[in-house]
Amino acid sequence: MEDIIYGKNPVIEAIGSGHSINKLLIQEGLKDKSAQKVLELAKSHKIIVQSVNKKKLDQLTQNENHQGFLAYVAPYQYVEVEALLKKAADKNEAPFLIICDEITDPHNLGSIIRTANAVGAHGVIVPKRRSASVTPTVVKTSCGAVEYVPVARVTNIVQTIQMLKANNVWIAGTDMDAPLYSESNLRGPIAIVIGNEGDGIGRLVKENCDFLVSLPMFGEVSSLNAAVAGAVVMYEIVRQRGQASK
Amino acid sequence: MEDIIYGKNPVIEAIGSGHSINKLLIQEGLKDKSAQKVLELAKSHKIIVQSVNKKKLDQLTQNENHQGFLAYVAPYQYVEVEALLKKAADKNEAPFLIICDEITDPHNLGSIIRTANAVGAHGVIVPKRRSASVTPTVVKTSCGAVEYVPVARVTNIVQTIQMLKANNVWIAGTDMDAPLYSESNLRGPIAIVIGNEGDGIGRLVKENCDFLVSLPMFGEVSSLNAAVAGAVVMYEIVRQRGQASK
Repeated sequence: MEDIIYGKNPVIEAIGSGHSINKLLIQEGLKDKSAQKVLELAKSHKIIVQSVNKKKLDQLTQNENHQGFLAYVAPYQYVEVEALLKKAADKNEAPFLIICDEITDPHNLGSIIRTANAVGAHGVIVPKRRSASVTPTVVKTSCGAVEYVPVARVTNIVQTIQMLKANNVWIAGTDMDAPLYSESNLRGPIAIVIGNEGDGIGRLVKENCDFLVSLPMFGEVSSLNAAVAGAVVMYEIVRQRGQASK
Repeated sequence: MEDIIYGKNPVIEAIGSGHSINKLLIQEGLKDKSAQKVLELAKSHKIIVQSVNKKKLDQLTQNENHQGFLAYVAPYQYVEVEALLKKAADKNEAPFLIICDEITDPHNLGSIIRTANAVGAHGVIVPKRRSASVTPTVVKTSCGAVEYVPVARVTNIVQTIQMLKANNVWIAGTDMDAPLYSESNLRGPIAIVIGNEGDGIGRLVKENCDFLVSLPMFGEVSSLNAAVAGAVVMYEIVRQRGQASK
């Protein structure tokens, strides 16, 4: 079984990260700098390249915006939650994890993974059911970040939360009526729960959070986009931890 | 000329906000609570409702996710930049504006408008050229926030920046090599510039900013999604201004 990755940046990231690529398709006639860069990268990584017409790429990506580049890759390898904790320990950092509670829109999941990489989080956790999995759309929306941010897929989010608690990780959820996120202490080992686009965090998951935080809302809309809300909390964690920019 | 708005929440928001609606189409056979709610709302606002089949709605929305609801509305009314400043003055608040420098993805523009409403910003400014305009996709992605956040469409962003400066508004842009956003003073009257998805802020626009700020990046991806980066800066402005949640 193979997965596909498409789009200029995702393909470049996939090659650069050493992802196992079985074959690369490039749209015939592409002559710009990106095409040159991808070809050179592919050559230096000894990847088989095939020139195909645009129609073929449109078909393979179901008319998504492939920009002329498509790679056949080994299927996405999920990791265990333990591996996320080990990643933090190996870097001698307090765990910083993102739990997606039934995020169903692949664009949101991709965006969350992209931001998770930007803030230096150690991984993302998604449930097996009622959740977007790591599809080509997620890979593309993440701008290639899925190559660097490990994703664990778990059967039961509540059990995972309990396991994380046993490992001294604090679980923070977002809720309308909670104290302000910016006035809550987010400095320690933490996993933040991002709720479903429509319904927010599930009741049982919420009850299992150590604490809840809210984002201030001054307007008429009742909620933020899930990936946006997650990003604001992730960057507040960075701010509170006082990490300097690289 | 008419615009269309589709999707459950955008249609409900459009009706609730008193937007001038010429006709409402509802997919025949819809019997859930949302359909009931929309019908009651439409009735109380004396809006003409027509039952149509799903195929018709698919066609009108070009297969976008309409959820069975579509409204024909008066075309989007852009405002002048002066009106945004007046809105701030009327509320006795320091101006808080968002300038979108060639944001071309309607999902990003919609998301920015949604967040702008959530943080209580007074308006969004987009250029006439090389920018997404307020299309039905923007309306839907904004979750109806375009009904509340005025959008000004300007011919020349640099001229608009100069006009804002003359009105004592500070112009803040984002840039990789600038001081950290969270260590910059964002308390005063401010317009933040959100750059294009691929290229960031244009050179001339950047040169006309009063100051630049950066978001820390710890991972391998080189940038954040434009709407996400904008949201993080918008919420930092709220945090620094010390506004309490409503």
